[in-house]
Amino acid sequence: MTIASDVDLSALEAAVGAERVHRDSEIRARHSHDDAEWAPYEVPLAVVTAGSTEDVAATLRWADATGVRVVPRGAGTGLSGGANAVAGSIVLSLAEMDAVLEVDVDERYAVVQPGVVNDVLRSTVAQHGLWYPPDPASSAISTIGGNVATNAGGICCVKYGVTRDYVLGLTVVLADGSVVELGRRTAKGVAGYDLVGLMVGSEGTLGVVTSVTVKLLPLAGRDERAVIGYFPSLVAAGDAVAAVSRAGILPAALEIVDRTCLRAVDEWQHLGLPSDVDTLLLARIDEPGAAGDALADQVEALFAAAGGTDVERATDPADIDRLFTARRLAYPALERLGPVLTEDVCVPRGAVPEMLRRIQATAAANDVTIANIAHAGDGNLHPLIIAPEDDHAAKTRAKTAFDQIVADSLALGGTVTGEHGVGLLKLPGLREELGERVVAMHRAVKDALDPKGTLNPGKAF
Amino acid sequence: MTIASDVDLSALEAAVGAERVHRDSEIRARHSHDDAEWAPYEVPLAVVTAGSTEDVAATLRWADATGVRVVPRGAGTGLSGGANAVAGSIVLSLAEMDAVLEVDVDERYAVVQPGVVNDVLRSTVAQHGLWYPPDPASSAISTIGGNVATNAGGICCVKYGVTRDYVLGLTVVLADGSVVELGRRTAKGVAGYDLVGLMVGSEGTLGVVTSVTVKLLPLAGRDERAVIGYFPSLVAAGDAVAAVSRAGILPAALEIVDRTCLRAVDEWQHLGLPSDVDTLLLARIDEPGAAGDALADQVEALFAAAGGTDVERATDPADIDRLFTARRLAYPALERLGPVLTEDVCVPRGAVPEMLRRIQATAAANDVTIANIAHAGDGNLHPLIIAPEDDHAAKTRAKTAFDQIVADSLALGGTVTGEHGVGLLKLPGLREELGERVVAMHRAVKDALDPKGTLNPGKAF
Repeated sequence: MTIASDVDLSALEAAVGAERVHRDSEIRARHSHDDAEWAPYEVPLAVVTAGSTEDVAATLRWADATGVRVVPRGAGTGLSGGANAVAGSIVLSLAEMDAVLEVDVDERYAVVQPGVVNDVLRSTVAQHGLWYPPDPASSAISTIGGNVATNAGGICCVKYGVTRDYVLGLTVVLADGSVVELGRRTAKGVAGYDLVGLMVGSEGTLGVVTSVTVKLLPLAGRDERAVIGYFPSLVAAGDAVAAVSRAGILPAALEIVDRTCLRAVDEWQHLGLPSDVDTLLLARIDEPGAAGDALADQVEALFAAAGGTDVERATDPADIDRLFTARRLAYPALERLGPVLTEDVCVPRGAVPEMLRRIQATAAANDVTIANIAHAGDGNLHPLIIAPEDDHAAKTRAKTAFDQIVADSLALGGTVTGEHGVGLLKLPGLREELGERVVAMHRAVKDALDPKGTLNPGKAF
Repeated sequence: MTIASDVDLSALEAAVGAERVHRDSEIRARHSHDDAEWAPYEVPLAVVTAGSTEDVAATLRWADATGVRVVPRGAGTGLSGGANAVAGSIVLSLAEMDAVLEVDVDERYAVVQPGVVNDVLRSTVAQHGLWYPPDPASSAISTIGGNVATNAGGICCVKYGVTRDYVLGLTVVLADGSVVELGRRTAKGVAGYDLVGLMVGSEGTLGVVTSVTVKLLPLAGRDERAVIGYFPSLVAAGDAVAAVSRAGILPAALEIVDRTCLRAVDEWQHLGLPSDVDTLLLARIDEPGAAGDALADQVEALFAAAGGTDVERATDPADIDRLFTARRLAYPALERLGPVLTEDVCVPRGAVPEMLRRIQATAAANDVTIANIAHAGDGNLHPLIIAPEDDHAAKTRAKTAFDQIVADSLALGGTVTGEHGVGLLKLPGLREELGERVVAMHRAVKDALDPKGTLNPGKAF
């Protein structure tokens, strides 16, 4: 592939250093898409690996002057195509900006560059007795910058909230290359519009984040306990989820792993999971002391009442970790079976059983395999549609199932994306969810902050 | 006062009903400003008391067509002038839209009209075993609509967050009169930009909120305990606050009431408060059971180590309420002494002692009385500057002190407003805090969503 002849990259190379501008086709191919199977992408003109805010600013000043579009990218672990390159674009990678700049123990915040991997932030602040709660299942590989771009959720978010709840401030390079500091380091503040919240979840369409100030919690003060149970069906597990919610219990995690996932994990890792069970439901309760024990008793009873068997409790961290292994490995285990089309709908908690029922009906009606993992405690379901490689008919049926699941989620009062972001895959459902006037508001805000349409065109809305 | 002759209100009366359009001068005067002493205001052309979303939409369609500007207003308890009328404007009151529309116990949310008083929402959902945490000190008189407009904080926000953290969805009438539904009712969702968060805290400059969907927490599961102590000085109490923060304790409240406030309350209510003490520090700890008791022990020890005396603990709700009475009555007690210029700076928790020291120095240097109440646990201080009626020299000195406190807050890494909003009073400090480029971003967003500048002109940024 040749570089489009009318774009002169030499000025870009002069601005950021030639060693940061990659024209090599293997590098360009590797940066052309994220982990969303089936979303469209193009190979970019070049890849810029930024090392500083100034590199990002210089790249955007060049783009502003030349009209070249820019697709920001972290680790490329996204599941909606939000980092997929468009024709004639530059991919701007923030992955090398991976320093933890500051941990303030007394004020309980950290300042990090966007390329810091979520788990690295978590382990770094843990050394200071602090905790960064948002824990997407991709925490070992996804970056804070990507987490901010998608407003990533995770397993403990049912109780502790999502990425946006922990972002106090951002350094952002705007589309014209100007650098702004948004937000604050104080515990509270209402000075001006919430531009930090607007940037979080905007999928790189409004600015490029080059540092993130995150709020931290004390690490101590929580006593971890896990309660697990096996259920005769996905819907029965959903009933248990609805019962826990109705009882007013806020578990620190409430996760579903279905039969298809359990088998895929066991075939891969030989964990000795029971072969005769259908669905695993995992809860974590972290209230301290006797109060937490009493809540765990209540969860056990609710599991049993909904048909749960082999209900088991763990308090030792290693045992808890073991019980959650099947959840953590479900996605990679499934990817071994074929291309996975990942859903991310979120429905009211009470609608979880009905939504699971409809997903099963959709799988049967379209003759596709749909595995299920779910942050069930907040109604965020991840039906994983698997199609064999190179089976075009199966892919078409999978796409039909995908659309049906989105439609069912909206019909039940849900949303098309709970935590993965809109990217490209969820654009059709999004328009239906938001309506024309709200999409027009998005367009107006986008035009206000990126009038030339430089940043990540065609994504997010 | 005569109505400007070039504005024909009859079309507005035809649209919303003549009984909703008030030309009476007493009503117009009463709706011309909020509770911010000293902020400028004008008497509006008329007051519209909306009874429905359609009334609001009709008013904004009329304003869009005629070019008349609209100042939305709740109960008028704001402390920054955000609801102050501008020349030639209509004040649009949402106070009569005061119905709790829905409480969903299983999904833990409520849908309310904007005129619902905060305490009414709290007591209504409490009947269903649910809790709406944000508790501004004005909770008995301020409305949810106003709380949303200012992103109101409160006493328990140090642990439980502010209004924005609890708003899931909004019905908003835009400047052109179109009605949009923003947000969701699910626990999570990342479909599109966070326009809900953008609206919260935008002080009526981007749209008029006509219904609010708020997230609720279970009411049970917390054991309340109060710990109070008296300190020999404001700064000593500030040291205790910093020590609690450093120890990694997240109290459910951590409030300072200084000597001036204590005396004002005691002279008014005769509560028998000790006369020989300087500063009261109040903590609430709500972890359940023995864990909470242990934290309260730790707080008591930290109070004593910082010089606290008469340290007392309460667990009975009536006793806790009694101990917090002085805090609750401080503001109305001070208003009896003269016009109060209310500050609302927020500094890093560790800077609380230094900020309190500077406030005292500012009071002495300018020969003004400054009383202090503070949500000290999140560094949000409310120095209350009192000047005698009709003493113009004192007012000038008070204004100088006000500006000095804002400057000191920014110098210590703080913000000009922690929870009251920018309104008119904080506009100068805001520009310094945000910087030119970020103010330009605000202008761009405002122009995008309200291109004619109809809504609450001149406020917020």
